[in-house]
Amino acid sequence: MAQGSTASGPQSEVDVLIIGAGPAGLMMANWMSRCGIRTRIVDKRGTKIFNGQADGLQCRTLEIFDSFDFAHRAWIESNHMLEICLWNPDPKTGVIHRSDRIPDTIPNISRFQQVVLHQGRIERFFLDSISEHSKRTLQNVPGWEQGIQVEHGVMPVSFEFDESLAEDNDAYPITVKLRHLSELEATPKQAATSVNGSSLQDGLFRSNLSPDDTQELLERSKALREKEGREETIKAKYMLGADGAHSWVRNQLGFKLQGESTDYIWGVLDIIPITDFPDIRMRCAIHSENSGSVMVIPRENKLVRLYIQLTTMENAGGGKRADRSKISPDTILASAQRIMKPYKIDYRYCDWWTAYQIGQRVGDSFSLKERVFLAGDAVHTHSPKAGQGMNVSMQDAFNLGWKVASVVKGTSNRTILKTYQSERRRIAKDLIDFDHRFSRLFSGRPAKDVLDEEGISMEEFKNAFEKGNLFASGVAVDYGASIIVAKSGDSTEQGDGTEVLGEQTLRVISTQDLAAGVQVGMRMPSFKVLNQADARPWHFQELLKSNGTWRLVVFAGDIVGNPGQKARLDALGEKLGSATSFLKRFTPPGSRYDSVIEVLSVHSSKRKDVTIFDFPAAFRPWDDRDGWDYWKIHVDDVSYHEGYGDAYTHYGVDRARGCAVILRPDQYVSWVGAMDDYDSMDKFFSGFMVEQPQRATLETTEMVDSKDISRVSLKDADDAGDQATNGAVVGMAAA
Amino acid sequence: MAQGSTASGPQSEVDVLIIGAGPAGLMMANWMSRCGIRTRIVDKRGTKIFNGQADGLQCRTLEIFDSFDFAHRAWIESNHMLEICLWNPDPKTGVIHRSDRIPDTIPNISRFQQVVLHQGRIERFFLDSISEHSKRTLQNVPGWEQGIQVEHGVMPVSFEFDESLAEDNDAYPITVKLRHLSELEATPKQAATSVNGSSLQDGLFRSNLSPDDTQELLERSKALREKEGREETIKAKYMLGADGAHSWVRNQLGFKLQGESTDYIWGVLDIIPITDFPDIRMRCAIHSENSGSVMVIPRENKLVRLYIQLTTMENAGGGKRADRSKISPDTILASAQRIMKPYKIDYRYCDWWTAYQIGQRVGDSFSLKERVFLAGDAVHTHSPKAGQGMNVSMQDAFNLGWKVASVVKGTSNRTILKTYQSERRRIAKDLIDFDHRFSRLFSGRPAKDVLDEEGISMEEFKNAFEKGNLFASGVAVDYGASIIVAKSGDSTEQGDGTEVLGEQTLRVISTQDLAAGVQVGMRMPSFKVLNQADARPWHFQELLKSNGTWRLVVFAGDIVGNPGQKARLDALGEKLGSATSFLKRFTPPGSRYDSVIEVLSVHSSKRKDVTIFDFPAAFRPWDDRDGWDYWKIHVDDVSYHEGYGDAYTHYGVDRARGCAVILRPDQYVSWVGAMDDYDSMDKFFSGFMVEQPQRATLETTEMVDSKDISRVSLKDADDAGDQATNGAVVGMAAA
Repeated sequence: MAQGSTASGPQSEVDVLIIGAGPAGLMMANWMSRCGIRTRIVDKRGTKIFNGQADGLQCRTLEIFDSFDFAHRAWIESNHMLEICLWNPDPKTGVIHRSDRIPDTIPNISRFQQVVLHQGRIERFFLDSISEHSKRTLQNVPGWEQGIQVEHGVMPVSFEFDESLAEDNDAYPITVKLRHLSELEATPKQAATSVNGSSLQDGLFRSNLSPDDTQELLERSKALREKEGREETIKAKYMLGADGAHSWVRNQLGFKLQGESTDYIWGVLDIIPITDFPDIRMRCAIHSENSGSVMVIPRENKLVRLYIQLTTMENAGGGKRADRSKISPDTILASAQRIMKPYKIDYRYCDWWTAYQIGQRVGDSFSLKERVFLAGDAVHTHSPKAGQGMNVSMQDAFNLGWKVASVVKGTSNRTILKTYQSERRRIAKDLIDFDHRFSRLFSGRPAKDVLDEEGISMEEFKNAFEKGNLFASGVAVDYGASIIVAKSGDSTEQGDGTEVLGEQTLRVISTQDLAAGVQVGMRMPSFKVLNQADARPWHFQELLKSNGTWRLVVFAGDIVGNPGQKARLDALGEKLGSATSFLKRFTPPGSRYDSVIEVLSVHSSKRKDVTIFDFPAAFRPWDDRDGWDYWKIHVDDVSYHEGYGDAYTHYGVDRARGCAVILRPDQYVSWVGAMDDYDSMDKFFSGFMVEQPQRATLETTEMVDSKDISRVSLKDADDAGDQATNGAVVGMAAA
Repeated sequence: MAQGSTASGPQSEVDVLIIGAGPAGLMMANWMSRCGIRTRIVDKRGTKIFNGQADGLQCRTLEIFDSFDFAHRAWIESNHMLEICLWNPDPKTGVIHRSDRIPDTIPNISRFQQVVLHQGRIERFFLDSISEHSKRTLQNVPGWEQGIQVEHGVMPVSFEFDESLAEDNDAYPITVKLRHLSELEATPKQAATSVNGSSLQDGLFRSNLSPDDTQELLERSKALREKEGREETIKAKYMLGADGAHSWVRNQLGFKLQGESTDYIWGVLDIIPITDFPDIRMRCAIHSENSGSVMVIPRENKLVRLYIQLTTMENAGGGKRADRSKISPDTILASAQRIMKPYKIDYRYCDWWTAYQIGQRVGDSFSLKERVFLAGDAVHTHSPKAGQGMNVSMQDAFNLGWKVASVVKGTSNRTILKTYQSERRRIAKDLIDFDHRFSRLFSGRPAKDVLDEEGISMEEFKNAFEKGNLFASGVAVDYGASIIVAKSGDSTEQGDGTEVLGEQTLRVISTQDLAAGVQVGMRMPSFKVLNQADARPWHFQELLKSNGTWRLVVFAGDIVGNPGQKARLDALGEKLGSATSFLKRFTPPGSRYDSVIEVLSVHSSKRKDVTIFDFPAAFRPWDDRDGWDYWKIHVDDVSYHEGYGDAYTHYGVDRARGCAVILRPDQYVSWVGAMDDYDSMDKFFSGFMVEQPQRATLETTEMVDSKDISRVSLKDADDAGDQATNGAVVGMAAA
């Protein structure tokens, strides 16, 4: 595959090489930025795509964004979709009318609801996050002080893989040659075909550009000029192909997409609508009598996206095959007008348009020897109307990132990597099935009556829509049994067929009924609890930031009112704090006490009856500079301003005796067991974690006497002018 | 005052000149950035202060931040204070114990609660906001395309005022000479007195610095070098002195602060505490038996601020006067240790420390001829413990900014400017009284028993604390009758003595009992309502962004179930839409229909029984490009995910007949009256608004036919590679 004449250029090593800087690639890079992994991410494009593109964000995706601290940016900027209105032909007149309303996001499944936001903004959030965090986590790694930068206008030209090195964790079995493109090469076609040659100067994207973006574009352009045409060689430990439906990486591996296309053709218009249709700011599914269907997706900045059916079922009455060469905004709009009449629909501003043919395909394999992985559109394609594409792509990489990072860092062994394909290829297949059913129902002509067997029953459509909504939310994902999901059953049946159980002797099975609301294999649901030390309410998921850390959540029960419970807690605390505890065996020397496994607790006594000193030191670890850790112990009690989370009830945990839960770094539940079942916890972690050569120090010392403390006072008092605010300043002296 | 030898330098004109870039000055500049007013803001300092400084943010301040769209930044980064723990001597043993807990913010007074955040971050939010919005609002003003920039290292050196021009709205009666300081001059003393000469390289501020701040510091330093020593002359229409307790502007005007200092001396330590005191992450008021008092303020980044009494009442037993020259972090800590024993308190990291003497003073005048104004510490100083200083300072400028902006823009006449002193000097006096009482109670020795008359009753202290909490929240502010607050009574008694009623013939009085929960003179409370068009829940205050716009809020009542109510609504809509409506008379030609007065409505029928087309066009104005405005009409109904706001009940509005409310641009309530009392609305606005020469066009045309629309399609379809995501792309054609 190498590109002939060019000299081989410089060579360098990275832990992870990511091909493609779309949502899946950026999610992967984002994980690496949190975990401090030497990563390069390249994309052949020289500029970002500003318009069009998928833009629905599921509530689970927002939960994930929140775990990376930028959900609020999406939440604030996006359009929130609250209700779905179903419009169908009136059985008597045939004229469309609103037949039903259903909530867009099923109430109470998440603290977020589905929203819509332009993909360019989401990429911006990732870029900001990657830059900020990788500078912090890599600041002490020579050559990586600037952190991880997304490199545009760079494409891979050759790929080699040394299979003999695949199982050597320290080896670099992957060799990729990269070519730095000229600016012209890296400019996507669409800009060249724009109407007035100024597509980058006009349109929606201006409002989406944050001020620093302009500077970035200039710098990127400069960087492109400097590197133009150069080639370099990268040796990588791991690689991710997140390079879209025409994936170069997938082609290099020789993997295939399986599935087929249909004849349904749909047009898409992003417009500011001028209309008398009363539900234009709702999500609507409109089935006309004979003219096809429209889906309405209200967006940010006054925009509305219309998905407009251009072909109807040929064997149904009135259907007419569209002439593909004649598809234009005008012909698409004309279809919409036919479908939505008697309502008027038009526009003066169109932001973007396209047309597509529905097809569902899924990759036959997601990984080469657990060294090269594929994610996102590279391994599954489907129709855009259910708002799944970008979400599932990001969630692929969200599943993979922490696994690769923990193996690179040497805290987990490679066995966990097989769970990526097992878990995500199963999801992709489910998605394809869902999309196939949904598309058929949406593209079909409504049944005229119960005898019209070729027509689609609108009742069936509504039911499918409601069920589809749960699937589409992303919270229904339920990963099968594996070395990191301690549940019973056949792991190959529960996944995609890959064997992921590990050694049978180390298999742990949860006691699921100790926490009926904390389903093993699913993501941890979120309810409000209070911090014991300061009474602040937190949604429990807010405590589960994506930083690569596993969590042991101890639901301590009622340590005041239940006799013996305090003793059980103390006994567990003693084991956790001991020198041979799994907390210490698996934590590298010099690392913080909560860097591999963090211990969180939630008790059910009254907040006012307890202080953190009622908990053993392992639950509030000591630091010489910072004293006790006040941010680990929580309580299920009433807040002053935000009501009562009633977490024990929602989690299905016994208020008296509690339970224990192990959570993966991606918030999925690994194990549920008895509160003090230390042995199962130890066995579970021992199944895949790597014993560290030296023991980390988990200080449990009680407070040292104050005279032993050498104080550091970095600042002395401010000058008098400032302090006059606070009355006259007295007694100023340098420390 | 001019500085001798320097040549007079360049001369320029601005609408508003702000001296001082602390919270009050920045708030003023922030208003100007939203309203598009040509503004310069200068500060003599060359660098920002990173540590120390007041940092409590009241819930009202957060509401104001939210009206400027950056409350979430403060909310996310800050420490939230939930509970106040009162610690007093045990009556039997004399040992301190927790005697009570009270919520820090009174539940249900605001959707925000009091938080604590370093002032440097708050200044950053303002800088970002000023930059972003002034570039937008001033983009078409020659010479102001770069918006408003805060200029550091610039100080005023002379001031002239031409009184004869004071009432000429177009004149520039103010002349100020500015001097650009050298870098050395502009560096505050504190950096020079730091322990190790590296105070800017170490300490907390690093975590508070956003990445672009570094670049900004470099550029600022470069700008300082270039302008060093230069002088220039500014002619200004209006000026604000927000230059602190030693205000140069106040001295130029010859105004005085009135009040006195006390003998109570307090020390302040910002530390990461090492302690076994169980409530160290709560706000605590600790009264020891004989050693004085400590207030604990938990902060962000693990810090805790301790206010520590260094002198006790001399006539009380055991009090010992501190030797001022001996005040140091060690002596302050020693005091804290005495007060907090038997608990241990120490630190290894101290971020900042100081000491101060309590004093309460207020300015005798806040304005020179309503051309030069004073705000913040320039006109009121007090003790810092109640967390009021920064809040009241920002709220001074929040009160003033929109008034000055609307006069400069020619939409209001100058009479409204007198309300600044009337409203804010009254608040300052109330603050000083509050602080005086509170400080005495806090600095006093606890009474030993009911006969101990010199001691402070702890019951009295708790009551004062609870009452003080309402005052300190900022939501209790109640402005008196004036030309812009239509309530009965004597305006001089309700304010600071200034006459602010305007012409008696135009005086309007509210019918307060139509909305018992919407108190005229107070800020509009917030409850959730739903957007009629898309069912999204909004806190009502979220609709009241600070953009300089007045709001007419029409509580439309039950337009479905109450006979005749729809007709009343239609009649009001007709008047509002007519050519002589106040909406048109006061809106400059060419301005958007909602730029001076925005009409919002909230009805009480069921959402599902209504569409926006049930409302007259004046409630959902038409725009040729954007169609109908979907963001004006709301409903008091149940949401899918966020419960029921029950706004009519909370606002005390009759569900059948509704009412109407006029809100100032700062969310304070001007008028409450009958829903269709058009004449009173007109009379109210006529009292101070300026009739515009031409009429603005408020389109109420129904939809034009689609063939009349010339469409603009700025983008054509994306290239095939991207669309493959969505299935195969077909029928691509340039528009």
